Amino acid sequence: MNTVEMAHGSGGQAMQQLINRLFMEAFNNPWLAEQEDQARIDLATLTAQGDRLAFSTDSYVIDPLFFPGGDIGKLAVCGTANDVAVSGAIPRYLSCGFILEEGLPMETLAAVVNSMAQTAREAGIAIVTGDTKVVQRGAADKLFINTAGMGAIPPDIHWGAQRLSVGDVLIVTGTLGCHGATILNLREGLGLDGELRSDCAVLTPLIQTLRGIPGVKALRDATRGGVNAVVHEFAASCGYGIELTERSLPVKPAVRGLCELLGLDPLNFANEGKLVIGVERAAAQAVLEQLQAHPSGKEAAMIGEVVERKGVRLTGLYGVKRTLDLPHAEPLPRIC
Amino acid sequence: MNTVEMAHGSGGQAMQQLINRLFMEAFNNPWLAEQEDQARIDLATLTAQGDRLAFSTDSYVIDPLFFPGGDIGKLAVCGTANDVAVSGAIPRYLSCGFILEEGLPMETLAAVVNSMAQTAREAGIAIVTGDTKVVQRGAADKLFINTAGMGAIPPDIHWGAQRLSVGDVLIVTGTLGCHGATILNLREGLGLDGELRSDCAVLTPLIQTLRGIPGVKALRDATRGGVNAVVHEFAASCGYGIELTERSLPVKPAVRGLCELLGLDPLNFANEGKLVIGVERAAAQAVLEQLQAHPSGKEAAMIGEVVERKGVRLTGLYGVKRTLDLPHAEPLPRIC
Repeated sequence: MNTVEMAHGSGGQAMQQLINRLFMEAFNNPWLAEQEDQARIDLATLTAQGDRLAFSTDSYVIDPLFFPGGDIGKLAVCGTANDVAVSGAIPRYLSCGFILEEGLPMETLAAVVNSMAQTAREAGIAIVTGDTKVVQRGAADKLFINTAGMGAIPPDIHWGAQRLSVGDVLIVTGTLGCHGATILNLREGLGLDGELRSDCAVLTPLIQTLRGIPGVKALRDATRGGVNAVVHEFAASCGYGIELTERSLPVKPAVRGLCELLGLDPLNFANEGKLVIGVERAAAQAVLEQLQAHPSGKEAAMIGEVVERKGVRLTGLYGVKRTLDLPHAEPLPRIC
Repeated sequence: MNTVEMAHGSGGQAMQQLINRLFMEAFNNPWLAEQEDQARIDLATLTAQGDRLAFSTDSYVIDPLFFPGGDIGKLAVCGTANDVAVSGAIPRYLSCGFILEEGLPMETLAAVVNSMAQTAREAGIAIVTGDTKVVQRGAADKLFINTAGMGAIPPDIHWGAQRLSVGDVLIVTGTLGCHGATILNLREGLGLDGELRSDCAVLTPLIQTLRGIPGVKALRDATRGGVNAVVHEFAASCGYGIELTERSLPVKPAVRGLCELLGLDPLNFANEGKLVIGVERAAAQAVLEQLQAHPSGKEAAMIGEVVERKGVRLTGLYGVKRTLDLPHAEPLPRIC
């Protein structure tokens, strides 16, 4: 069988074979092996790690399925793991739901599944329960994935955007917009191949280096909507304003070039491996050094601060302050 | 704004408005209100209810979106809640991921969301975290939903298909194939409207009546693939055979008529509110009475037993025993 057929989603033999031969083998773990309708996770294991369960979900519809630095499978593990990890939890368990288009090459599905399995394994995450649906040709574009993830939040961590207050400093853990620029380049054939690479990565190790530092207040990964969306969310949650400094925003030359070419702002571009962190001013230097000492945080930078005056503003290269609006829409659909 | 636009999935203002005006209002609960990237659930609440976390996911791609007895939103709550509930857990928390086609009427989305909210509320389930993606016209068919659910399994419940052994009795909690027949009738315009209605329901209350009964060994809800798929799964898990008796299978006249018309078997038809239960023979009568005393189990019946000889067989109306194969595919795609 070289392509996905309607039968693979029907609850009959074909589906059972797909599950046994592809998913069970790739994701191989004791919870899946039970073959019950639900994974059963020992609550004592979770309570040993924390006192609250972080639970998050994302669907992935990125086009194209494969791109420099990743693919939809890797993204589906990293994206949801990061949404769990920014709470301070160590993501441990994922569910996974596939929606497949009839006619999808089985080779494509296998490549995506194996990439998910490898990304999860490397991050210490088990894909413990799943589901497969197949829709007829033309009723979905190739392949969509949903993952839901969970992990326990250690009792000493209480990060949240509502805790931010005036004077706190905002730090970004690396260069802006690499994921968005990579997809835009591929989609539009802009010819910057080789220079652009998605930053798609599980951020748990980087986040865990912050655990001991008392001044850390809020973390979020800057995906759809970019750093701009996160600072707007931060501002809305804490009730204050935020001011960023354009000069301090780390942006790779290739991404900057692409943005200038198209008149786009890297602040609005999606990332898949970058955090925005809000910290007390007194802890900012220590946090920055901690991040920069980690391979995923080398280009971390302080980019702004929380201020009394509401709204989000950007101080430009010539010192002029302007309001930074949240765009009505991101320039790029199906970025994740 | 009368239709879903690409901007509603872009991470910008339009998405934020959709989230605030539709989802937050309909699903309204303290976990969602936090507006963090993840829900944070008190682990002490879960450990007070059980010692293991049941975790399950399903994607819903049913076509049409609305049908007698339910809609894709109700189904997305019931289906996943039931996959959690058959472990013995009380489903408490759901995640929810939408994949929307550009151009979907906002009215359709609102009807589905409100149906999800109502179904969840009635079942004591909170939709605590979610995600929305929009794909361009033609890249998805109207609307897909993924839900992942969880709840704690009480320490005294250890249900599992592996526990079944020779002599155990199989019980079904009501008539077979109502959901599948309803969708088939709608899709093919067979004119049986008014007589057919999906059995789509949250089964937690019915399942919890079994909690005190020691002879209950395994539960599963008979969705895609019907009762036939479940008995094949039971046989594979326990390593024995299963024999069903055709005469004892409860089937509504309209469903039987439709099956005879089309030469289909109600055993293969999807249900969305029926359980197959494996019980010790000595407990079978007590379980049956318990089920029949509940409004959702009035038509419960013993339908077969676990036997030494491997394979699944059906004793027909004239006493002839034949092998019951798991079909390669169900007759009907996009049934859930």
